[in-house]
Amino acid sequence: MVFTPHPLAILSEEETNIARDVILAQHPNTVIDFREIYLSEPPKTELLEFLALEHSGRLSPTSPRPARLALCQYDVIGSDHIPSFNESVVDVGARQRIKHKIVGKKHHASLTLSEFDTLVERCFASPLFQKALEDFDLPAGFEVTIEPWPYGGLDYTDEPRRYFQGLCFATNKSTNNPDANFYSYPLPLIPVMDALTQEIIRVDRPATGGKGDGLTQQTFKRDIIGHCKDSDYVPELVPGGMRKDLKPLNVVQPEGPSFKITNESLVEWQKWRFRVAFNPREGATIHDVWYDGRSVMHRLSISEMTVPYADPRPPFHRKQAFDFGDGGGGNMANNLSIGCDCLGVIKYFDAVMTGADGKAQKLPNAICLHEQDNGIGWKHSNWRTGRAVVTRHRELVVQFIITLANYEYIFAYKFDQSGGITVESRATGILNVVNIDAGKTSDYGNVVSGGVLAQNHQHIFCVRIDPAIDGNNNSVQVEESHPVPMNEATNPMGNYYKVTNETVERAGWLDAAPDLNRTIKMVNPHKINPISQKPVGYKFIPLATQRLLADPNSIQARRAQFAQHHVWITKYRDGELYAGGRYTLQSQEEIEGVSDAVKRGDSVKDTDVVVWSTFGITHNPRVEDWPVMPVEIFQLMIRPADFFTANPSLDVPSDRNVSSRIVDKECCRKAHI
Amino acid sequence: MVFTPHPLAILSEEETNIARDVILAQHPNTVIDFREIYLSEPPKTELLEFLALEHSGRLSPTSPRPARLALCQYDVIGSDHIPSFNESVVDVGARQRIKHKIVGKKHHASLTLSEFDTLVERCFASPLFQKALEDFDLPAGFEVTIEPWPYGGLDYTDEPRRYFQGLCFATNKSTNNPDANFYSYPLPLIPVMDALTQEIIRVDRPATGGKGDGLTQQTFKRDIIGHCKDSDYVPELVPGGMRKDLKPLNVVQPEGPSFKITNESLVEWQKWRFRVAFNPREGATIHDVWYDGRSVMHRLSISEMTVPYADPRPPFHRKQAFDFGDGGGGNMANNLSIGCDCLGVIKYFDAVMTGADGKAQKLPNAICLHEQDNGIGWKHSNWRTGRAVVTRHRELVVQFIITLANYEYIFAYKFDQSGGITVESRATGILNVVNIDAGKTSDYGNVVSGGVLAQNHQHIFCVRIDPAIDGNNNSVQVEESHPVPMNEATNPMGNYYKVTNETVERAGWLDAAPDLNRTIKMVNPHKINPISQKPVGYKFIPLATQRLLADPNSIQARRAQFAQHHVWITKYRDGELYAGGRYTLQSQEEIEGVSDAVKRGDSVKDTDVVVWSTFGITHNPRVEDWPVMPVEIFQLMIRPADFFTANPSLDVPSDRNVSSRIVDKECCRKAHI
Repeated sequence: MVFTPHPLAILSEEETNIARDVILAQHPNTVIDFREIYLSEPPKTELLEFLALEHSGRLSPTSPRPARLALCQYDVIGSDHIPSFNESVVDVGARQRIKHKIVGKKHHASLTLSEFDTLVERCFASPLFQKALEDFDLPAGFEVTIEPWPYGGLDYTDEPRRYFQGLCFATNKSTNNPDANFYSYPLPLIPVMDALTQEIIRVDRPATGGKGDGLTQQTFKRDIIGHCKDSDYVPELVPGGMRKDLKPLNVVQPEGPSFKITNESLVEWQKWRFRVAFNPREGATIHDVWYDGRSVMHRLSISEMTVPYADPRPPFHRKQAFDFGDGGGGNMANNLSIGCDCLGVIKYFDAVMTGADGKAQKLPNAICLHEQDNGIGWKHSNWRTGRAVVTRHRELVVQFIITLANYEYIFAYKFDQSGGITVESRATGILNVVNIDAGKTSDYGNVVSGGVLAQNHQHIFCVRIDPAIDGNNNSVQVEESHPVPMNEATNPMGNYYKVTNETVERAGWLDAAPDLNRTIKMVNPHKINPISQKPVGYKFIPLATQRLLADPNSIQARRAQFAQHHVWITKYRDGELYAGGRYTLQSQEEIEGVSDAVKRGDSVKDTDVVVWSTFGITHNPRVEDWPVMPVEIFQLMIRPADFFTANPSLDVPSDRNVSSRIVDKECCRKAHI
Repeated sequence: MVFTPHPLAILSEEETNIARDVILAQHPNTVIDFREIYLSEPPKTELLEFLALEHSGRLSPTSPRPARLALCQYDVIGSDHIPSFNESVVDVGARQRIKHKIVGKKHHASLTLSEFDTLVERCFASPLFQKALEDFDLPAGFEVTIEPWPYGGLDYTDEPRRYFQGLCFATNKSTNNPDANFYSYPLPLIPVMDALTQEIIRVDRPATGGKGDGLTQQTFKRDIIGHCKDSDYVPELVPGGMRKDLKPLNVVQPEGPSFKITNESLVEWQKWRFRVAFNPREGATIHDVWYDGRSVMHRLSISEMTVPYADPRPPFHRKQAFDFGDGGGGNMANNLSIGCDCLGVIKYFDAVMTGADGKAQKLPNAICLHEQDNGIGWKHSNWRTGRAVVTRHRELVVQFIITLANYEYIFAYKFDQSGGITVESRATGILNVVNIDAGKTSDYGNVVSGGVLAQNHQHIFCVRIDPAIDGNNNSVQVEESHPVPMNEATNPMGNYYKVTNETVERAGWLDAAPDLNRTIKMVNPHKINPISQKPVGYKFIPLATQRLLADPNSIQARRAQFAQHHVWITKYRDGELYAGGRYTLQSQEEIEGVSDAVKRGDSVKDTDVVVWSTFGITHNPRVEDWPVMPVEIFQLMIRPADFFTANPSLDVPSDRNVSSRIVDKECCRKAHI
């Protein structure tokens, strides 16, 4: 019997290469530059039929299976060297192209690293850029480094073409260390490349002033980095070296992990059962989540994030990344390392990426999976008998980490023994910074090192939740707790508050309302909890973080509608996965994102509903965020709400951990004062 | 040289017994019932003088030291058997009483467990209570259990006396297990005892109805628990037994812990240096916190918490606990167990409590201290070279756990390597529940088990922060991020937002404002960060959780003013430690709590300022919270803000943890579908 991949398994290297061959055969005698080839997930109706068979144990080798489809994104380079951006769907099993379109000028394909390489190369070859550099005297031993960036939203005055911009820094080569931190030496130049002609068309000159210097006034000195200094994070360059008093803390699992992985993608752990997948856009995704034989979620993913910068001085308004849409969160995923990115016994999942030639390239260790202890899970002491029962809170963590030039994000899906799922995001990495004149401070950010201004910005994430609470048709309820004025009839002593519960009828949005304890419940209206007599569900409290601050009429806001509300509720549609729209690179508006999806006004009651949770941080940098930022942690806690008939972790053993120790006396001296 | 305790060290058993003897000598031929004897912390001016000597290394055996003072709370039982509540301060070194007062009728002393014992005993002896029980038929094998409770706020019609109330349950003795969960069988009786006469003066009869049954209508049946059922949490009684597939996860520290403890109270770890203390009111407290030779905080504590219940049916409005003020958070602290309450290498701190005879009683293991790994601390990958530098986020945790009848709270002060302090509270334990008629549901809570209604309620905590940012005189700044309409002069492209920063002038309160990203900064206005040119500080974002919902004119609200705003800012006063006032038991108003402190209108600029952070949860119970609730976690994150000149964890080694392992093949089978 041949091994047949599960419909949700990522495309294998072999499948990827088949898809490539099919595409190449369709475009004979043509230059093709590949962007991505990855699984086009099956239409949901087909997938649900398959999953129903699988879960009922009736799956056989002759059962109908959704076709293995490859989404192929590639440029066809015409004889005029002008590329057209093509998208095809290939049926890998049938070795046939079944869909093809040329994406029009309305959208831009996501960027590729080769475009970034071209930008760097063209800058150095550009007389315009070289001339701009002549305005500065760089000290001996310093070399210019260009950090390629997406162009952000087009300016109103820009021609509608594809551009890239470079942020410029100087690297101190005298350190003889290739990992010297060049971000310490920002240069006030932003070269702009026309991607089509590959020409540097302009070098923007951002201001370097401080308070009172206005938006455009040029105040920089020729000695542009004379007031900057090394600020390194690689251990061998950190002044004073490493602290010596940190002793090892090991996570040891002598009997191995408690999880089981089958066929590379099916994870079983502590009554949970789900599949892990990966794609170049979203990174790790979670599918077909069940707990103890009951369906909980169909799909869970990080849908999008945007990082708008708030410095009003042109052209800094163009600093706005869409870290999943512009270049692909998965494309930027780290190859993870044992003992660094997580502890204990670890399962790594590889991903398959695509080279410019379309050939499959393995990305090893793109996802790590491990168990961790997160303190006490539940405890009760009976004061009458003195007996305490206490369990640990064990979590299963599916983690991936992306690097976007300077920044890193660590994403984790955490499953716990009480039926909870926590989606965690940690922001770390290096602040994006610009040059500021010596001795000045700014209204637009914080000076974090000599001559280095870290601009105020926001990071706004969107998590997409496709619930399947005991089945695919669900409703969304909004539960709130309202004060009630003291009154004889309903609240004679004034202690009462009223809990309201409204079912959402139509697709739409709403915001966090901590003053009302607003809670979003995803329920199955047809399955009633036999104890509470309420529909079974899962809930979360939307994180009350600041929404997008940019003016609603700004390009920044128009292209990131999803960042303007905390919760979006839509009716499921195949392929509708991306909060900020499928094509975010250089977008002017959010097109076919979640804001368009809600405009359909679909009924979302007792149907296949999708819930989107937006949250983030307004990041006005601290000096402590430099040169690498300690993690800022966000957690979206999705919890069962009358889904079970009791605490599902009641059967977690409360055994004493026998490897724990009391400190010996040596570390606890008694001294005389 | 004799060992002299540090001025912040808890009273030793010997010191406690000295204080007792001094008190007894002052009251010859009198019956004295002791409530507490514990350290009265030195007046701050004296303490600061001592600490200055200590930190400068100039402390000598002849240095002036603050007197060791014992706060003694006790009842003097008069010849009429009427107790008067006395408070004395004893100078332990001088063996002298230096202060004495009789607390007037305005206040009630906090409760003691012996009062609880009396309530139980008197109920069973009470003809009134026995007669009330005759309304019910309890099945064979069931016995009545009484859970003593504080009386809450007095009713308007109550005489101003000291009362206790009992919540009644039935225990299924046929389980032959003393830890069978009696909360599964609630009885609708609330006996009330006059504490002075020790008589049961009344048995309240709460309603057991559901929706539409009104506030007082009696609908219960004689077979009062016929629709209830066992719902146990002790492993041997959990149906189906324990899950078998959880494998051990050990935290092993082969070279021992990274911390050092001197003289039982001084903790040094990863550049942090602070003292741990403990008292019967607040539990564990943290003092004199320094990082790398710089002062950060003078004192950090859990000041108070209140748990008001929202069921409007009388007498449930009297269900409102002040879990620190009523009985003492420290008094209710658990004796912690190795391998259960934390993992790894653990230092336990004992506490000293007081018996009714005034004699010192050791409470072993009242506090545990250990290190833990909390994922990645910071990371950056240089995509040009492929080199990743990643550190772990190690934390030092000071934890204590309190049990208040049914509920438990796990409190932790967590110090990290990036200069951060996180105050964590986990709510767990058993819901407080009442009887509900078979088949009914309620607007006032959720049915979590047959016949068991878990009433809606709130838990509202208050953390007291006495900052000492590079010295004792600090200011408080409120930083906000405001949108700015697009305009040619300051925001031409609409991406700008304005960061405002106001220094608080006068004592007062403010609330969380996530829409403004409102951030509280505690700064030293005289110490300017040389890089950012801003005053050095620590900050936190007030947790945007729902404030007290009770009507402002209700007794519940009047006695918990502190729960009505998220942040309170006051000028330091000796002894002003308790957000809800010193005497909360049966209080009618919050007296001498934080709301009174702000009424002084003190200037709080550049002075000894105290900041209070209120947060909590509106807890509308889930079925999953029964019979023991999985932890709900709250974290107040206090972080340096331009206190340092770079990321303070830059020197944390990024060494690979060598004990981590890749899973072996066995747990990752490939199967054919």
